[in-house]
Amino acid sequence: MENFIYNTPTKVYFGKGTEKEIGKIISNYGYKKIMIQYGQNSVIKSGLLDSVLSCLDEYNIEYVLCGGVEPNPKLTFVRKAVEIAKAENVDFILAIGGGSVLDSSKFTALGAVNDIDVWSFAMGKAVPTSALPVGVVLTMSAAGSEMSNSAVITNLELNMKKGFSSELNRCKFAVCNPELTYTVSKYQTACGVVDIMAHTMERYFTLFPDTDLTDMIAEGVLKSVIKAGKIAIDNPTDYDSRATIMWASSLSHNGLTACGRENFLAVHQLEHALSGEYDSVAHGAGLAVLFPTWAKYVYKKNISRFAKFARNVWGVNEVDDEKAALLGIDKMSEYFISIGMPSKISEFGVSKDSLDRLADLCTFQKTRTIKSYITLGFKEVKEIFESCY
Amino acid sequence: MENFIYNTPTKVYFGKGTEKEIGKIISNYGYKKIMIQYGQNSVIKSGLLDSVLSCLDEYNIEYVLCGGVEPNPKLTFVRKAVEIAKAENVDFILAIGGGSVLDSSKFTALGAVNDIDVWSFAMGKAVPTSALPVGVVLTMSAAGSEMSNSAVITNLELNMKKGFSSELNRCKFAVCNPELTYTVSKYQTACGVVDIMAHTMERYFTLFPDTDLTDMIAEGVLKSVIKAGKIAIDNPTDYDSRATIMWASSLSHNGLTACGRENFLAVHQLEHALSGEYDSVAHGAGLAVLFPTWAKYVYKKNISRFAKFARNVWGVNEVDDEKAALLGIDKMSEYFISIGMPSKISEFGVSKDSLDRLADLCTFQKTRTIKSYITLGFKEVKEIFESCY
Repeated sequence: MENFIYNTPTKVYFGKGTEKEIGKIISNYGYKKIMIQYGQNSVIKSGLLDSVLSCLDEYNIEYVLCGGVEPNPKLTFVRKAVEIAKAENVDFILAIGGGSVLDSSKFTALGAVNDIDVWSFAMGKAVPTSALPVGVVLTMSAAGSEMSNSAVITNLELNMKKGFSSELNRCKFAVCNPELTYTVSKYQTACGVVDIMAHTMERYFTLFPDTDLTDMIAEGVLKSVIKAGKIAIDNPTDYDSRATIMWASSLSHNGLTACGRENFLAVHQLEHALSGEYDSVAHGAGLAVLFPTWAKYVYKKNISRFAKFARNVWGVNEVDDEKAALLGIDKMSEYFISIGMPSKISEFGVSKDSLDRLADLCTFQKTRTIKSYITLGFKEVKEIFESCY
Repeated sequence: MENFIYNTPTKVYFGKGTEKEIGKIISNYGYKKIMIQYGQNSVIKSGLLDSVLSCLDEYNIEYVLCGGVEPNPKLTFVRKAVEIAKAENVDFILAIGGGSVLDSSKFTALGAVNDIDVWSFAMGKAVPTSALPVGVVLTMSAAGSEMSNSAVITNLELNMKKGFSSELNRCKFAVCNPELTYTVSKYQTACGVVDIMAHTMERYFTLFPDTDLTDMIAEGVLKSVIKAGKIAIDNPTDYDSRATIMWASSLSHNGLTACGRENFLAVHQLEHALSGEYDSVAHGAGLAVLFPTWAKYVYKKNISRFAKFARNVWGVNEVDDEKAALLGIDKMSEYFISIGMPSKISEFGVSKDSLDRLADLCTFQKTRTIKSYITLGFKEVKEIFESCY
């Protein structure tokens, strides 16, 4: 087991009706004037925004509304939000939404207390020393941003989607009521399930020796999400499956499934190029296409690990390791298709001659390689894109 | 899944050599003058105390030494430590040791900033509003106190061992180097393994419906500890098994294995009477005797759950639920014996006519019952003690 630091300071209020505690929760921290970020109209239509505002009024908490965060949140939006946060002198940012709203809030929180453009943080050209505190009322189970130390942002000018990890990105609290995800569409629910699975699998397929405890936790997260995903898609108001997916989203990305080994989120790097370039591609759908393809591309470098995955997660009953490994990858692929996910890049309407450009974006114009069982440079990335076109 | 709050703010520095970071870690928090609690002579003999003091010197951190914490830490010791902490005006308490030293430190931290005797907190007669921050360099894997919100203390005048849970009891940080547990004896290692398993099983056997995700995490913790326990007892310097046990000790008691259901730690209540009355009884050894006995006493109230436990944790291959449930309990019992644990109260040298008194202590002189599959009053507690005498 490799050395690790485990840091999950986010306090999670999980369950029915928890969003009605939001005024009390924020008041207990002592925040007085907050910014509220949200996405499009759904939190208005559902009445959630009004309900939150009433709770804040009850505790005399002032707020500045900052709606309109788009999926794959944009740098331009964050820059404006930073200006507002500074001008209004807010002391806290509340995200109401899913990963996009939360990541936008996290970047805004970094920008609000640093006189440096946040893109410099994403590009690793500057390191933030502080951030406003952030909390979330979660309405979608997918990104795991509610407990993670990461945030992702898209720079449309450069067609670049970049992740940024820092302990400053950990939320103070997350209010997680699975009922708030009842209205998430089947497609978006499936995208979330894939994202959660991908967060777990990226940490499972590492270059480090097996660690029984972490492996079994990861396998438990995967098995329970695979089962709950099917149920929630068939019956969107099934509380227990929605709850399982929501809690798994937090555990998949808070560090628990990585304890004792490093990880590189290689498939996420491939996908960020895709949804960074094609804004209509949902992150989870991109991962559903790329994960099995990546797995088939690299599995020979650690056949026993892929065989273990096949047997322990998918119940593959095959003594030969290589056959088991391949059966496990097939099962993963079949599952993604069974919940309505695409299996080819072409399904996104991407033309074949774009693959060069995607590989170029993914490798930052051939200036980086991605760690994985096989180190992925331009050539390898392009081969992966081609084999799932 | 029931509503829950998940709060694990303790930052864990896990792995080889992490104790050498202690000066830097404490300095980063800004603490200037700390109290150090430790047990008997082992941390002196091993050189660990000296090594920690050097690290503190390097960062100009003042310290007050407060050694001599006994197993089943005593109220009398804590009262003296509280006086010292107040007189010396320390701003932080560092525990170097296992659960006993840590629990003593936690109670001291509560007493140091409240003008109320800490026994009032344990008895629920007063509620603390603040506590000094506490951190730990862990030298034993067992109690899970390094991430838990609980602490246990023994009042020798009343022959009473009492637990106290509060979010104020959460450590700021835990430094966990598995190598520091290499010198823990086979017997104490086994006691730790039982304690970790018991923390997990107490949360597994609840009155609430199954929650797949939490169940699978708990089963993973149990299976990995069962395997690692055997290896560490046979080969005390096997790093990976020591690491698995150490990390499992934290996860077993930080709340993770209870998410989505309440728990009552019933067997812990039974055991606290035993080791509260007989100071020579190690907590884990008491649990090893009592857990299978309790399980046989109550299993009929939830046969399917005990059957699930048997199949998923112990690999019992039996289609009949009741037979499977009993086989699982037998496997648990056999495992405890195989790692050198007792299976009868009589092995502790307790006389049979003490059982009345033990049941009396456990029920606080017949003034309380304990929640469990069967509510345990004086009669039931005595029957359990009798059936494992």
